[in-house]
Amino acid sequence: MPPIVCIVGRPKSGKTTLMGRLIPELKRRGYRVATIKHITHRFDLDVPGKDSWDHSQAGSECIILSSPHNVALIENVDHDLSPAELARFVTGDFDIVLAEGFKKSDQPKIEVHRRDIGELVCLPQGLMAVVTDEPLELVVPQFSMNDISELADLIERNILGKCLR
Amino acid sequence: MPPIVCIVGRPKSGKTTLMGRLIPELKRRGYRVATIKHITHRFDLDVPGKDSWDHSQAGSECIILSSPHNVALIENVDHDLSPAELARFVTGDFDIVLAEGFKKSDQPKIEVHRRDIGELVCLPQGLMAVVTDEPLELVVPQFSMNDISELADLIERNILGKCLR
Repeated sequence: MPPIVCIVGRPKSGKTTLMGRLIPELKRRGYRVATIKHITHRFDLDVPGKDSWDHSQAGSECIILSSPHNVALIENVDHDLSPAELARFVTGDFDIVLAEGFKKSDQPKIEVHRRDIGELVCLPQGLMAVVTDEPLELVVPQFSMNDISELADLIERNILGKCLR
Repeated sequence: MPPIVCIVGRPKSGKTTLMGRLIPELKRRGYRVATIKHITHRFDLDVPGKDSWDHSQAGSECIILSSPHNVALIENVDHDLSPAELARFVTGDFDIVLAEGFKKSDQPKIEVHRRDIGELVCLPQGLMAVVTDEPLELVVPQFSMNDISELADLIERNILGKCLR
């Protein structure tokens, strides 16, 4: 199972922005990246011709759709799964899972902080880094939203076990 | 990995109808059923607030969405996966995978036949049963679309390894 890193922070702190910069940087370095996003409401697949294949109406609790370009799976669950529980769905050949949210998880976390949004939500448990727009009195490494290369170095070193020069 | 049975047949032969009857019958008998459907075109998830989490735009090749009610996964692939390849996505505690389509698969197959649609497409390789609206000169077991209980008996005996009275 690939290692998991959670990108946490208050709403509007910039978690999605960081995900959007970190994913391509890790890909550029040759890693295969899977991602997890938590959503509070039930969702659904919207696929052309859905009525003709909707096995969920017949009671299937795990539905897989396969095309030549992508595969989708929807499975019913009875509780909010943790990132570690969700990682079991990652069965392909991936090097790392980036999870957006999950601030209560016990996985390594990177918190995104903005001065005008409020204090850190995860301090100090399990924070491996903070991405911040102001200097903070912390012992954990701090980066700006533009320090993506340095943050990726840290992830490679601490999570992916790579020896960097 | 749970065993796979493919429900095959010509277009409009009644594959989806059979799936819709077989799934609840197997569930009634206590089995957990996963299903696979092949689709020829690329598809997408349509989730409220999609723009805010679309990790695929950032290059994620495996995206997992988690809610308290269901989990979805979308993964990019570079070819049409076989039912056996698709079964790796079934990581939960399921007893059987019913795949709709995949007539060229080497998994056990049940073909749905209708007199006015045309000849069987899978005869005779790997057919464990035929669901038909006319008697056919075949050595494989034949059922009508209403013989769901008898067909489920056959699946339990031949695929799920259950000794029935």
